[in-house]
Amino acid sequence: MKVICAENMGFCSGVKRAVDMALKQKDAFVLGQLIHNPQVVEMLDKKGIKEISSVDDIEKGSLIITAHGTTKSNVEKAKIKGLKIIDTTCPLVKKVQDLAKEFSSKGYDIILFGDKGHSEVKGIVSNAENIIVISSKEDAKNVFVKKACLLSQTTQSIEKFNEISKVLKSNVNELKIINTICNATKKRQDSAMNIAKKVDIMIVIGGYNSANTKRLNEICSKITETKHIETTREIKKEWFQGKKSVGITAGASTPDFVIKEIKKKIESL
Amino acid sequence: MKVICAENMGFCSGVKRAVDMALKQKDAFVLGQLIHNPQVVEMLDKKGIKEISSVDDIEKGSLIITAHGTTKSNVEKAKIKGLKIIDTTCPLVKKVQDLAKEFSSKGYDIILFGDKGHSEVKGIVSNAENIIVISSKEDAKNVFVKKACLLSQTTQSIEKFNEISKVLKSNVNELKIINTICNATKKRQDSAMNIAKKVDIMIVIGGYNSANTKRLNEICSKITETKHIETTREIKKEWFQGKKSVGITAGASTPDFVIKEIKKKIESL
Repeated sequence: MKVICAENMGFCSGVKRAVDMALKQKDAFVLGQLIHNPQVVEMLDKKGIKEISSVDDIEKGSLIITAHGTTKSNVEKAKIKGLKIIDTTCPLVKKVQDLAKEFSSKGYDIILFGDKGHSEVKGIVSNAENIIVISSKEDAKNVFVKKACLLSQTTQSIEKFNEISKVLKSNVNELKIINTICNATKKRQDSAMNIAKKVDIMIVIGGYNSANTKRLNEICSKITETKHIETTREIKKEWFQGKKSVGITAGASTPDFVIKEIKKKIESL
Repeated sequence: MKVICAENMGFCSGVKRAVDMALKQKDAFVLGQLIHNPQVVEMLDKKGIKEISSVDDIEKGSLIITAHGTTKSNVEKAKIKGLKIIDTTCPLVKKVQDLAKEFSSKGYDIILFGDKGHSEVKGIVSNAENIIVISSKEDAKNVFVKKACLLSQTTQSIEKFNEISKVLKSNVNELKIINTICNATKKRQDSAMNIAKKVDIMIVIGGYNSANTKRLNEICSKITETKHIETTREIKKEWFQGKKSVGITAGASTPDFVIKEIKKKIESL
């Protein structure tokens, strides 16, 4: 069985930066998961970098803001408590937050294409004045506003973003479209699509709560049989019966060692 | 088996008015279904009142606007064509359209609780400037605006409207809540709920595309076993096996003769 790996996969620069920054700390707290990957979260935990779910959970120490960013009110709370803030927000996410703020102040309604309830989305929302979060073409069909700016969570599907843009063009009089899907996401989606077309089965590696990994799974599933896994333990021998080729891709928050381990396991079958 | 009928059910004044107005016409066209009930639509068709799906379908004659109202652009098109317009829009629906217009002009964003794509909703949307249609508490959680006015399609569930109001209160700085669910809807929902609590099975009679009938079905289903039917033909003897009591209710667009026929059939079992 031939194993083909996607040209672009695994850690993006934003994730790498966040992990590097976190690893420089000792006994810090992370507000949520630094990146949406169970292996990395476990590794950080062992190094004394503990996950908390709310700023209310601590009174002192260092607080790491995750790669997805956080809400303005969380930052304010942390400042009031006098916590030392280590902000690992991905610069590309920060840019979307800034655009939401800028276009809000110019009188635009913000329409954000994103996973409802995702931490990146919550952070962006907190920077805008009038904002609606939509996650599909169907949602877009129910927004009728005069002047709006369409932004995207950095890890969304470009195909869906284009579909949504098309719908909004007919419902919004003055529409400013800014595609804020990051280049790393785009490259990983393109690479995954390319190999999915050539193989009998795709393996998508990454956290089940990772937005960009979920997108890779969605995209590949439309093309070929696809399995989304987090660890080697989930691999089933029968998936590969009668298959001549398997493709591998991984989300932007999946560490190299996990990809290598899984690749090795598949090759051994 | 005891058969209990809801105190309030069947034709509301808006539906009665629309049917009366339509029956005074000869060879007119209706833009969509006058009311969402198959038997009434069939009866009108036999009297020469034909359903069309678009104003583009006709060049002359009389055009009946349905009880649910229609969009501003449809009315304008009909005027330009010189069609005679018979407007049966329910006065309570007209009021919601007017409120959407009024609060839009006062700088409010309109949040409309309604069935996405329903003709009443489309008509209201066309009267507002900035409007978002939401159909659930989950949708409401993704709207963050400064100054908004919450309105409702006239046939929605009051319980859901209250849930949505609660969510929006925390997301919208200045929220004006106007409960535009009509009294007939409220009374039919209350009556249905009252008997649903007392019986072993509820029969909800009305068009499958009738918004208010769907609401009655949803409400009763939460309380007891419930079947939504349009005609006697759908009744199944086995539904009533071992049942001691059956409740009957009907949507605001269900004519009396249909209710009587179904009641008679059930009593004969």
